[in-house]
Amino acid sequence: MRDVAMVGAGMTHFGELWKLSLRELFAEAALAALESAGADHLDGLWVGNMSAGQFVGQEHIGPMLVEQLGMSGVPATRVESACASGGMALRAAWLEVASGQSEIVMAAGVEKMNDGADVTAVLATAADQEAEVYHGITFPGLYAMIARAHMAAHGTTVEDMAWVAVKNHRHGALNPHAQFRREITVEDVLGSSLVAEPLRLLNCSPVSDGAAAVLLVPLSRAHEFTDRPVRILGSGAATAAMALADRADPATLDAVVTSATRAYRMAGIQPAQIDVAEVHDCFSIAEICCTGAMGLTDGCNPAQAARSGFTALGGRRPVNTSGGLKAKGHPVGATGVAQAIEIFAQLRGEAGDRQVPDAHIGATQNMGGSGASSVVHVFTRG
Amino acid sequence: MRDVAMVGAGMTHFGELWKLSLRELFAEAALAALESAGADHLDGLWVGNMSAGQFVGQEHIGPMLVEQLGMSGVPATRVESACASGGMALRAAWLEVASGQSEIVMAAGVEKMNDGADVTAVLATAADQEAEVYHGITFPGLYAMIARAHMAAHGTTVEDMAWVAVKNHRHGALNPHAQFRREITVEDVLGSSLVAEPLRLLNCSPVSDGAAAVLLVPLSRAHEFTDRPVRILGSGAATAAMALADRADPATLDAVVTSATRAYRMAGIQPAQIDVAEVHDCFSIAEICCTGAMGLTDGCNPAQAARSGFTALGGRRPVNTSGGLKAKGHPVGATGVAQAIEIFAQLRGEAGDRQVPDAHIGATQNMGGSGASSVVHVFTRG
Repeated sequence: MRDVAMVGAGMTHFGELWKLSLRELFAEAALAALESAGADHLDGLWVGNMSAGQFVGQEHIGPMLVEQLGMSGVPATRVESACASGGMALRAAWLEVASGQSEIVMAAGVEKMNDGADVTAVLATAADQEAEVYHGITFPGLYAMIARAHMAAHGTTVEDMAWVAVKNHRHGALNPHAQFRREITVEDVLGSSLVAEPLRLLNCSPVSDGAAAVLLVPLSRAHEFTDRPVRILGSGAATAAMALADRADPATLDAVVTSATRAYRMAGIQPAQIDVAEVHDCFSIAEICCTGAMGLTDGCNPAQAARSGFTALGGRRPVNTSGGLKAKGHPVGATGVAQAIEIFAQLRGEAGDRQVPDAHIGATQNMGGSGASSVVHVFTRG
Repeated sequence: MRDVAMVGAGMTHFGELWKLSLRELFAEAALAALESAGADHLDGLWVGNMSAGQFVGQEHIGPMLVEQLGMSGVPATRVESACASGGMALRAAWLEVASGQSEIVMAAGVEKMNDGADVTAVLATAADQEAEVYHGITFPGLYAMIARAHMAAHGTTVEDMAWVAVKNHRHGALNPHAQFRREITVEDVLGSSLVAEPLRLLNCSPVSDGAAAVLLVPLSRAHEFTDRPVRILGSGAATAAMALADRADPATLDAVVTSATRAYRMAGIQPAQIDVAEVHDCFSIAEICCTGAMGLTDGCNPAQAARSGFTALGGRRPVNTSGGLKAKGHPVGATGVAQAIEIFAQLRGEAGDRQVPDAHIGATQNMGGSGASSVVHVFTRG
């Protein structure tokens, strides 16, 4: 396999972007990515998108999006794995370059969620229709059950979960692209509306519009595009049972464990070597489960990692320096690519007020549904 | 890049399969593919599916489908490019094996269309919502305009189009998996209900349920799985303007021309070397456009190719020996993979009454929307 490098990146602000359509969101991110690398053409596009068919009545977005760039003709295909669509698009683009088939491939993600659809119902189509959704449950309820299981098994508290949101809002306040650029307190979280007990409003990522795009090229050609390429060291993907009830332990996300193990093995690293990570905090409990599953808290209790500062900026291993899904926003198909963009910035020393000093190795973890799919990437300075 | 071979294949019958759900359809095809190659595990799955979210309220089908095989854990991702979803899933699986990342990867496709959804409206989400569908047009209307443009530019007649359907029903009558196993006449076609002038009911592919799956491995390992592997010689994909009105000539499908050119170049062949091909005859006019765009009629008028017998079984270059989308059926996400299965059978000499004698090189062409995406593969005996 050829080594692959990320050489350009671009993203929109995340938020309620009522004036921008799906194709406009994509074009803003994609053109920024092309410009950042001085690239004027593509050999391929893989775009992560969960539900444009349901959200805005448009399937078949691949050709539509390259056309919006003025690049009609370029192969362009949508990849879908619910909220892990962006991470899986990155993986597909990586495979295309690694194979030797193509030289300059874009991995992008886009979602237009604020356009009138019943968002909670659309998102619920990522859960098992027959085993779960038919009976009335949606994602806040599923993650509430995961939280309850984690509390019962590990003594995790609502304060622990609140600290995840507090930390990520602190980080997000420093990110110009974030949907929420304000700090919140533990009291704010615990006083916010109950959504699905024990999860409150401020434990939940928001409904967002947005797009993100990165450019991948062979590592051997990376310096044609940038002085500071970021190399993809490892990629790992995995699945687990769709329905929560079919898992041995709802508090353990097997797909996250497996995808991380595969990515670390390919990268030849141990998790303790990771300097900065973006993980899938769609709900506060998810960050606790995912950092634990990825071994990012060095054997300490992952539920305490935000509260203790271990995963905060300035701590041992900052997690979700972008603000995470909670504060940066979560346009579901774009999230996995936006995670890679944060690591790209961190490893290039371009993260501004969010910079983790001397970050050499970074990781992303992007998850679909209640953890039925997960994809992990490991990056280093090129 | 590593050379890649197809070593196993399985598919369901195509048709109105009211008693089988999406996951049951997939499992039937996938288990047959695994069994045919004596394989008991997978390193990855790419599944083509256009609109399970809209058809059956289920996105995120990757993890659900590998779980149905008893293989939870295996990376599994959906690929969508409207009716070219299956062909693009094949391309993604090919890239994964060609890259050296994985050894045994399944490319599958599945669609459950007969489950209560407004099928024509769902399919129309593959056209440009803003430029086309909002104004009321759906696919029969779009292809009717393509037909009118072709008639005006090339003198194509409704009889020419009828012959495409007649030929493909003759072929389909020989295919045990086909939705329609009966012959029809030109008079039947011309006497059938008008759908969108000049297209009549028997010019249109049906609404179908079905699934198809193939197994890809490195060519170097193919003989562990079968004595008769089929090698993927070339893969080419391309896009074109989404909206028909944005194309220079509606009767010329640029994405088909480009994808075929790319696949032939990679394969190192000329179209005249192709012994048998499956092309995307969603409407009769599409087969005429696609065979022309792919150079399959040796410079003769592609509109005459069915009528003259050139593309019929027994002719110079049989096209759609499976019955094509018209007679075999068109479960949209499965179609591209089912095309590969027909070529697999032909090149292995297993096509029974449909066998093209001494078939050495075969090609598939799978298309999305009114031709905004297209993917072509070229195969040969391993």
